[in-house]
Amino acid sequence: MITFWFEFASTYSYIAAERMRTLGEVPPRVVWRPFLLGPILKSMGLETSPFNVWPTKGAYMWRDVERLAGREGLVFRPPQPFPQNGLQAARVATGSAQASWLPDFVCGVYRAQFAQGKNIAEREVLRGVLEDVGADADDALARAEAPETKNALRAATEEAAARGVFGAPSFHVGDELFWGQDRIDDALAWRER
Amino acid sequence: MITFWFEFASTYSYIAAERMRTLGEVPPRVVWRPFLLGPILKSMGLETSPFNVWPTKGAYMWRDVERLAGREGLVFRPPQPFPQNGLQAARVATGSAQASWLPDFVCGVYRAQFAQGKNIAEREVLRGVLEDVGADADDALARAEAPETKNALRAATEEAAARGVFGAPSFHVGDELFWGQDRIDDALAWRER
Repeated sequence: MITFWFEFASTYSYIAAERMRTLGEVPPRVVWRPFLLGPILKSMGLETSPFNVWPTKGAYMWRDVERLAGREGLVFRPPQPFPQNGLQAARVATGSAQASWLPDFVCGVYRAQFAQGKNIAEREVLRGVLEDVGADADDALARAEAPETKNALRAATEEAAARGVFGAPSFHVGDELFWGQDRIDDALAWRER
Repeated sequence: MITFWFEFASTYSYIAAERMRTLGEVPPRVVWRPFLLGPILKSMGLETSPFNVWPTKGAYMWRDVERLAGREGLVFRPPQPFPQNGLQAARVATGSAQASWLPDFVCGVYRAQFAQGKNIAEREVLRGVLEDVGADADDALARAEAPETKNALRAATEEAAARGVFGAPSFHVGDELFWGQDRIDDALAWRER
């Protein structure tokens, strides 16, 4: 079983989510798990995205994601600000982990952020995506705020860290970890061993 | 024209060099350019390899390179110490950039370090590799120490940094930069555009 770990503010997670959906690698075949990369980066001594800490690394990432998006036929525009605050989106995804619309919601949030210039920290943006994917938006937004949802997201982040995740996207196949959208094929191949 | 930037102490550069050689992506088809990653990392505030700075990232790398080596049919044993000092090896490669044995020497140094448990900071280890690949070892070691060689390696590192390189291996196809052994196929495909 593959776990796909993604962070909503992560550009490479956008590419990965779209590819995973296109490949049909969605629940129940693959567990899609949102987590928060911020606390993990903080434990590594980074107060913001590595792409902001190191401008050369950032310049590479913006061009690289543009190229990758082009290959996948996706629009990509650098969001303002970067990184955005993906906490609410992650809570919505966590609270509705079993919903059939989860992959569409995840990709919808990425498109809102990286293609449509919206700020995913805004509740109304998330409501719009939920409505687009046919979810009960009021219900999903209410679940997102439930204490058990907040705890579950915190636990997911702690589990990711404990299992060696230090970046997004990441993939677990059993205990084998693969980091980066460019390792999707390796992760899928590992599952078939 | 593709430039393949590699650092002798870099585990992922080992995998990349072996793959490039297997694919026939060697001079004059591809420019193989050694550079020193240390000064670039230092300019980013890192006093040692990121894999030492962040143990989780290091643990991932060791397992990941072991997996990749297995796929390529290569032996891989973590060297002691890590990172090794690749300065002399880089000077030899720089001083003999036009030699037909360059790719074999590069891969030989990587195998000495990552498969045979040798320390590539030792002159005798480099001499052994040079002899194995049919080079005139005395001549190559003398060239390595020439002031113009030292200057050329310094200039290569400065050029890499100026052109956006922040890790190894990296690939330039014209001004397009690709970072990581997992992006070799992308770089090769970009050349055909």
